[in-house]
Amino acid sequence: MKQRNIYLKTVPVAEAVALAMAALDRETLVRAETVPSHQACGRVTSAPVYAVCSSPTFHSAAMDGYAVRAESTFTAREGRPVRLAKGSECVAVNTGHPLPEGMDGVLMIEKVVREDDGAIEIETPVFPMQHVRRIGEDIVATELLLPQNRTLSPYDVGGLLSAGIWEVPVWERLRMDFIPTGDEVLDFTLRPSPKPGQVIESNSQVFAGLAAAQGCLFTRVNPVPDNEEALTAAVLAAVDGPAHVVVVGAGSSAGSKDYSRSIIAGLGQVLVHGIDVMPGKPSILGVVKGKLVVGAPGYPVSAVVCFEELLIPLLSWLSRRTVPARPVVEAELSRKVPSKLGTEELVRLAIGRVGEKYVATPLGRGAGMLTTLIRAQGVTRIPTDSEGTEAGSQIRAELLVPEAELDQTLVVVGSHDNIVDVLGNELMGLPRPVRISSSHVGSMGGLTALKNRSALMAGTHLFDEAGGDFNFPFFRKYLPGLDVSCVNLAIRHQGLIVVRGNPLGIGGVQDLARPDVRFINRQRGAGTRILLDYHLKRAGIDPRQVQGYDKEEFTHMAVAVNVLTGTASCGLGIYAAAKALGLDFVPLARERYDLAFLPELADWKTETVLELIRSEAFKARIAALGGYETTLTGRIMEPGLGLG
Amino acid sequence: MKQRNIYLKTVPVAEAVALAMAALDRETLVRAETVPSHQACGRVTSAPVYAVCSSPTFHSAAMDGYAVRAESTFTAREGRPVRLAKGSECVAVNTGHPLPEGMDGVLMIEKVVREDDGAIEIETPVFPMQHVRRIGEDIVATELLLPQNRTLSPYDVGGLLSAGIWEVPVWERLRMDFIPTGDEVLDFTLRPSPKPGQVIESNSQVFAGLAAAQGCLFTRVNPVPDNEEALTAAVLAAVDGPAHVVVVGAGSSAGSKDYSRSIIAGLGQVLVHGIDVMPGKPSILGVVKGKLVVGAPGYPVSAVVCFEELLIPLLSWLSRRTVPARPVVEAELSRKVPSKLGTEELVRLAIGRVGEKYVATPLGRGAGMLTTLIRAQGVTRIPTDSEGTEAGSQIRAELLVPEAELDQTLVVVGSHDNIVDVLGNELMGLPRPVRISSSHVGSMGGLTALKNRSALMAGTHLFDEAGGDFNFPFFRKYLPGLDVSCVNLAIRHQGLIVVRGNPLGIGGVQDLARPDVRFINRQRGAGTRILLDYHLKRAGIDPRQVQGYDKEEFTHMAVAVNVLTGTASCGLGIYAAAKALGLDFVPLARERYDLAFLPELADWKTETVLELIRSEAFKARIAALGGYETTLTGRIMEPGLGLG
Repeated sequence: MKQRNIYLKTVPVAEAVALAMAALDRETLVRAETVPSHQACGRVTSAPVYAVCSSPTFHSAAMDGYAVRAESTFTAREGRPVRLAKGSECVAVNTGHPLPEGMDGVLMIEKVVREDDGAIEIETPVFPMQHVRRIGEDIVATELLLPQNRTLSPYDVGGLLSAGIWEVPVWERLRMDFIPTGDEVLDFTLRPSPKPGQVIESNSQVFAGLAAAQGCLFTRVNPVPDNEEALTAAVLAAVDGPAHVVVVGAGSSAGSKDYSRSIIAGLGQVLVHGIDVMPGKPSILGVVKGKLVVGAPGYPVSAVVCFEELLIPLLSWLSRRTVPARPVVEAELSRKVPSKLGTEELVRLAIGRVGEKYVATPLGRGAGMLTTLIRAQGVTRIPTDSEGTEAGSQIRAELLVPEAELDQTLVVVGSHDNIVDVLGNELMGLPRPVRISSSHVGSMGGLTALKNRSALMAGTHLFDEAGGDFNFPFFRKYLPGLDVSCVNLAIRHQGLIVVRGNPLGIGGVQDLARPDVRFINRQRGAGTRILLDYHLKRAGIDPRQVQGYDKEEFTHMAVAVNVLTGTASCGLGIYAAAKALGLDFVPLARERYDLAFLPELADWKTETVLELIRSEAFKARIAALGGYETTLTGRIMEPGLGLG
Repeated sequence: MKQRNIYLKTVPVAEAVALAMAALDRETLVRAETVPSHQACGRVTSAPVYAVCSSPTFHSAAMDGYAVRAESTFTAREGRPVRLAKGSECVAVNTGHPLPEGMDGVLMIEKVVREDDGAIEIETPVFPMQHVRRIGEDIVATELLLPQNRTLSPYDVGGLLSAGIWEVPVWERLRMDFIPTGDEVLDFTLRPSPKPGQVIESNSQVFAGLAAAQGCLFTRVNPVPDNEEALTAAVLAAVDGPAHVVVVGAGSSAGSKDYSRSIIAGLGQVLVHGIDVMPGKPSILGVVKGKLVVGAPGYPVSAVVCFEELLIPLLSWLSRRTVPARPVVEAELSRKVPSKLGTEELVRLAIGRVGEKYVATPLGRGAGMLTTLIRAQGVTRIPTDSEGTEAGSQIRAELLVPEAELDQTLVVVGSHDNIVDVLGNELMGLPRPVRISSSHVGSMGGLTALKNRSALMAGTHLFDEAGGDFNFPFFRKYLPGLDVSCVNLAIRHQGLIVVRGNPLGIGGVQDLARPDVRFINRQRGAGTRILLDYHLKRAGIDPRQVQGYDKEEFTHMAVAVNVLTGTASCGLGIYAAAKALGLDFVPLARERYDLAFLPELADWKTETVLELIRSEAFKARIAALGGYETTLTGRIMEPGLGLG
């Protein structure tokens, strides 16, 4: 084995940022330039800006009417009009017109009681400067209009132009170069088909979007293989170019092919290797020829943490902007989050309103789980000295979306079915869209969530073998005393998902005990597993006879993937999953897939869902998936209904 | 006079928006298109997006170490190592490598206790799938990745690429054409010098920035004069072009040259003329050839209200985005806001933290006051049925800036001096910047604000003729029982600001009683006015003898502008104001300009100000302005100190 790197002492994020600020000479790195004012929106002033013109540049009429000498109107009263000759004593003006010399007030057109070709009569006095916009009322020439280090808003641009300022001194835009690295990395611009061991490079484009949001210009360099010389050359070329910040994507960890640290150390100085936060720990900050060089981790979530925790404060500082603060809400944690002592952990959260509270569900914490970035509405920090946070505790969630989105988010917890995805997509097409946030924890997990009031709706397909009914026997047992409603989404077909052509000739549960059949199971609490257990029992098969009974997946699709890749010979799942991957399906049972909810928590989102499910268009979409029957779809279920 | 328009019945904003939605055919107006995924950040999906590849596409190592068969490690214990032959029983893997066929777990490199060329020894068992990223763990091919009408984040773009999706269906970007109108309007691209009656067109660029923030492409058409034919042609050309929304700038009111309504009515249909909100009332919504045509008011604040209240919801709806909601805070209103019954009023606010509360100061409400847009951190709504809001009441402020900025905002209320602008600019250059929000209400107004704890600092230069001291006698009288501190900014020179060359030969207050001298005064409560009264009294002059004593301005610069334009022959003010406009200055008195504050409310911002004022660099900047002495600058003042 090659020599491995050793992390420098890991440091807290704030210290890492401070070290970089101390090592960079901002005044030299980021220069001032002059740009046309009307192209300066979003830029940051590098010097104070003083008004050139006043605005208005003249006393002007603020109303349509007549300019007058105020003192000539003082005696006007109702029934005692004053007559003013046109031209010498009054002049017609529209809003914005300059006041004629000697006039000092404006009478609104509506106040003229009589008018002929030569004169007007008025019965209301005009006080001096009435309805007059004074010279310099808005902007006075020579006065400070905007201070240095001001991020220019659209309004500021309006002010600059009104004040006769055609050009404005600003800090140059930051430029970031991103160098993707890695032998296993495929260039997305070539539209590759990844083989095992290969991944499509996408971090550069995540950074591109995040950098643009910070007002930063972004360049992606062509990917560089894991070759120390080639990578050194790429870093050097970037540092010698116009970039202020150079990011090396991946290769920042302590693996045998992680060259970033040694390259930065060779060309300049490594300030930080390793930060006290998970994910994101293997981040590097360095300086080469006065430029900031960042080693970003390869895993997408780690890379994003590196950007958000290190790069955002540094880019803000370099560009003289305020570090953007995320809005914060209090939310109730729906599941326990264990955490390692000794390092801060960032946990992404799905957050939605359930009744009066926000409920936050922790998303998967793998650093490779890009979808957790997509699904998260917020993030919480588990401090260094904490072993985790219990379910039900109030936590502080930093929001990644506008708070208003949380009220549009419908938290669905429980069993997974592709119909929930269809539902989620259709809900986004409505005039008042609903965003579904769904967690797949199995039917029993959904009931627990309802009980804890941490979900608005729960997908459930629990079969009670005693009475032959669905769901209600479980409500009575596990949610005693609670008023639970339940709407049917569909009757669905469960069956054994097998390789296309079914080479093992699997015909039913009796074949699961065969020594040549490897099964892939669903997790404990999943309705599908309960269904399996029922059928095994009926067939007189002991679960210990089933090879792979202990191997668990959390969704139908994951089960199907195991079959597709040959990891298992078969698994129990829905027809839709088999169909999606081109697998065969051996029908085993029909079951009711319902959405359960507590009427006490029902709100406009629940109503919207009920209405949508009942539509013929929605039923047609479900039927088109195959493996579903829609005879009950949209109907509120009652105990004892079974399959209708 | 020409025929004037009559407003259609004015309607509430929500109704106006609903009328436009009902009249537009969104499906025809805004089309779907396909763009490369890596260029799709910020765009909105027009259809659901399903994963093409899984991610990972293979079971892979999640750690650097050795891939093993889990069951071959089960007996490993401390002191009872298991030896695994390299190649057949274990294979070295780095993070991300695919698991070799038949292997189902990864042992971290740190867990290897002994290693030679042929084998490793381990004392820890590996459970199945330990440190393995499973195929499809993140993304499963064929599953829904993103629903329709999703605004794509940088993370989403990463997800699209990882899922092998190279192109994505999105709604086309909205395009807005803006037609500036008006004979008096100058084209800023020509860098004009406005003459009386002319204004520099800037609304188009405010709209450009606001539109860009909504993801909208923006085109400014060349300005069109107030000519019905020319304007009709311009609207028609825009509507026949690629624009989805055409905005006619100005000409939307009911004046004799306001053609927008009749033009829209002639070409299509006017849906709304006049909305129930001030400013912004004279807004027009219409439809021409299926496009939205908007008549925006000419005054900048009205135009912005038209954009924010009408266009933002309509652009959001057309582009299938969520209407962006402003964060809301509770704040204490520092001054009374009267309001007209029968119409909603939007009042812009300067907001900053004072002690434990946010204090909101209403800004000038003129529809022409562009600077109120620049200075506002928030906006509040006075409902239709309210006659206004009292000082000290809690109001709901919609924020126009991130909430974090409020904590950086130092509320300074009281007398105005250019040094406060210099201070404000310098504070923005600090590593932890402070944003000054200053209201000019005179020294006495500043003391009232301190008393009400609605300002952190108050600019004050109140001279007590009895004891010859500054400020402290007034603290004792008007802030009895309060502990007030006070730091000197400078000793400044007050004098009579006169036209260059002083043609009237004004030599002192005695000349203010001359019949040929027209004075311009400061407002009641201004320290400068108190100073004037003291000198008039000493000179034995009755204020009624002073022509213009009743004409008031609120700042030194405004006084100077009156002199520059000949509106007045002279006014009392500071040297800096005279110098800035190239006017002459007849010295009258030296006075102390202090910043008063309550130590009980002092915070990091107050400390920052004190530290900055004491710096030699700051003193040098003040001295460079002329008319100031810095002998006391930065010193905490004591009663009886006078001019030191």
